[in-house]
Amino acid sequence: MEKATQPRAFYGSFFHTPEYGSFEYLERALIEVGEDGAIERVIAHDDPNQAAALAKVREAGTLYELGEGRFGLPGFVDIHIHSPQWPQAALALDEPLYRWLDERTFPLESKFADVDFAKKVYSDLVDQLLARGSTTAVYLGSAHLEATVALAEICAERGQRTLVGKTVMDDPKANPDYYRDASPEQAVRDTETLIREVEAIGRKSRAGAWPVITPRFIPSCTDEVLRGLGNLAESTGAYVQTHCNEGQWEHDVVLERFGKTDPYALRDFGLLREHSIMAHCPYLTEEEGEMFAELGVAVAHCPTANSYFSSAVAPVQRFRSQGIHVGLGTDISGGYSPSMYENIRQAVLVSRLLETGVNAQLPPEERGGLGEGTRLSLVESFWLATAGGAEALGLPLATFEPGRAFDLQVIDVKRPDSDLTGFGVFDEPIDRLARILYLSTPDNVRQVFSQGVLVCDKDAR
Amino acid sequence: MEKATQPRAFYGSFFHTPEYGSFEYLERALIEVGEDGAIERVIAHDDPNQAAALAKVREAGTLYELGEGRFGLPGFVDIHIHSPQWPQAALALDEPLYRWLDERTFPLESKFADVDFAKKVYSDLVDQLLARGSTTAVYLGSAHLEATVALAEICAERGQRTLVGKTVMDDPKANPDYYRDASPEQAVRDTETLIREVEAIGRKSRAGAWPVITPRFIPSCTDEVLRGLGNLAESTGAYVQTHCNEGQWEHDVVLERFGKTDPYALRDFGLLREHSIMAHCPYLTEEEGEMFAELGVAVAHCPTANSYFSSAVAPVQRFRSQGIHVGLGTDISGGYSPSMYENIRQAVLVSRLLETGVNAQLPPEERGGLGEGTRLSLVESFWLATAGGAEALGLPLATFEPGRAFDLQVIDVKRPDSDLTGFGVFDEPIDRLARILYLSTPDNVRQVFSQGVLVCDKDAR
Repeated sequence: MEKATQPRAFYGSFFHTPEYGSFEYLERALIEVGEDGAIERVIAHDDPNQAAALAKVREAGTLYELGEGRFGLPGFVDIHIHSPQWPQAALALDEPLYRWLDERTFPLESKFADVDFAKKVYSDLVDQLLARGSTTAVYLGSAHLEATVALAEICAERGQRTLVGKTVMDDPKANPDYYRDASPEQAVRDTETLIREVEAIGRKSRAGAWPVITPRFIPSCTDEVLRGLGNLAESTGAYVQTHCNEGQWEHDVVLERFGKTDPYALRDFGLLREHSIMAHCPYLTEEEGEMFAELGVAVAHCPTANSYFSSAVAPVQRFRSQGIHVGLGTDISGGYSPSMYENIRQAVLVSRLLETGVNAQLPPEERGGLGEGTRLSLVESFWLATAGGAEALGLPLATFEPGRAFDLQVIDVKRPDSDLTGFGVFDEPIDRLARILYLSTPDNVRQVFSQGVLVCDKDAR
Repeated sequence: MEKATQPRAFYGSFFHTPEYGSFEYLERALIEVGEDGAIERVIAHDDPNQAAALAKVREAGTLYELGEGRFGLPGFVDIHIHSPQWPQAALALDEPLYRWLDERTFPLESKFADVDFAKKVYSDLVDQLLARGSTTAVYLGSAHLEATVALAEICAERGQRTLVGKTVMDDPKANPDYYRDASPEQAVRDTETLIREVEAIGRKSRAGAWPVITPRFIPSCTDEVLRGLGNLAESTGAYVQTHCNEGQWEHDVVLERFGKTDPYALRDFGLLREHSIMAHCPYLTEEEGEMFAELGVAVAHCPTANSYFSSAVAPVQRFRSQGIHVGLGTDISGGYSPSMYENIRQAVLVSRLLETGVNAQLPPEERGGLGEGTRLSLVESFWLATAGGAEALGLPLATFEPGRAFDLQVIDVKRPDSDLTGFGVFDEPIDRLARILYLSTPDNVRQVFSQGVLVCDKDAR
């Protein structure tokens, strides 16, 4: 991926969110990046050293200028996405969960036994995500070891940072015979192999690759495999991801099986650890939330999927105020869109309905809304998609600060079918940022850099 | 707009929704269109006459073939959009309504006193809407007569079918001095002039232009002007549009002022008539809904704006079952997106939360959801954006049936950043349609025809 002409300094105007709740606009700033792709210095326009630093990189031929009408955003961190479900993104979302799983998801995922098919789908998926600015993705693969390793290799080749797991689903009572782990032992052995192989890929990969221990969710797994994976998490320190408290059905099934709720069952199997990623969690109680915060467990908020499969919206502001790490996920294909932009918008929208409730035939106080303090601002939602994801994963990413990986998307605000300039009316930084987040299309994202290296360039087509 | 080579027959595969709740896939069909842009015949692939009809138009040089990997959809009908708010789309949606109005909307709309500025903004808006497949739009203009007539002219030039009104807002207590009608009499006179001028434009316009009597909403208007506009509706038979029952504040203010709710107040001013368009309406009771159905009043459902400004979601399925006409609106800038695609998606999403409620800490039955029968399927939402809009307006549009205007968007399912082919997995017509509706970007929409004439061609760029 690396080129002889790799830029080492980037000059332009950038938006990012170092702190939750506010954004910073770095106007005409110079960002210096090390050989390894980490940010070394951010030199503001009014810094007396900027002129000399600019002259130096210009002379060295290592300067990249964003150019007029272009703005830089950090690469997005998508912390929950099912890679083998890409071919069914947008499909069957009117169906109940059991049909969606039995008639669509399981037959589709089983096709990833064919590694050539997997490579074809995954190459397209990674390209599409990069084209939408997602430079980091936490993938749930299929139940197949080989296809999942292939995904990690594709990410490394194309320059996307990845955390990736082979999905574990071993319970013969809960999974079809044509698509499940052969036994709990085999599932744990395959996960061990995955950890070894993805770590090896990570050592060669510029942006990094990390293995993730990935039980699909408790109802798919036997006690044996959950215990085995918990032990593996303890012995390897690898990341863990699963679904937690996503819907009423899951909540009830786990409670009946163990006499305790999903989060406590996962904890007792050793699966809740620092930077474990629990997808969805709208049913998480305050007490369970405290436990998450203590253990350093992160929530992957998937606002689109909430509407389809949760019958509820995750209370992100409450999670944040409890000290829980929260990032954002597209959840393909429980959500339809590969775009973190669409999910940033959706996180704002569902938070408004969580605040107020939905049914205007009831008096406001009986609508079931959580009330003031519930809604997410657009800037908070942007934080979730960038710095929040980085915090959830414990990785130095997604803001333009020294020591962080330099992942950049360059937004052109003047494209033929998507002009974000606003005719010169309301042109404050917050207005520019809002237009980019709410109105940009994939065509507005012109270049993407990952770990300092160009990985997508639409102008070069 | 009309060209010597205007196609008179279109061959390809088309999706449309002649009936609510289901769709029809016209595979390799031939659609014959008259000189006036209305559909004359739809000849199915298995019709023994298709071959001869195809040969004839091919020889005449009037055949347009959609081509491999391309699908036809009807043009969308956006039945609620504020044209002068285009420069603030996406802005200030975290603000409360009064600030959004006082600090943003009113200062912005007042700029449309400058007709050159209006023409610049409106030209871009109409282009952007056509680029997203919206061939019909019901606009609320600014309070200015001249700028609003200019919008109608721009639509006629560019080939977009339009229904357009000058917004009336005359109450000195409710509107800023720098932006309101000078008096009730002047507002009614300006509306009379608008009706005359837009009707004249409509007579020259291929796709049609209709004037709309447009009080902003009751709280902006004096009794005098509401009465005057109601009389004007009676005497001219012109369309009427306004906001109705959008939020709690509006509901309460009208109730206090008249001792009756918004819908009855509007009715008693003579503003509820056949094909009157009432935007939003989440607060509409069953009884008010019956009255709407009897009078033939239509609801413009604006799902994105519901989340920001209504504290509730409009119960579209209940409206439909009461016999009320319902179409879909982007509501720029109460909604951020100019895309009916995004609003089709949003209509589905909010209907799911209206079904279930939002707060998972409550037992399901206390979450305030409306329960079974509430949710909209994707296909129903597509109907709202096409045939539903046509029904609301009482115009023959938005399905591929003889006698209807031929408005077409051509979707290429294989674009560099947006491949909707799904790798050959799940390739039934419903899957193809779902991918188009959920995943397409403006770049997938390649050509747009309005009333039989090409009005947007991205391949020609």
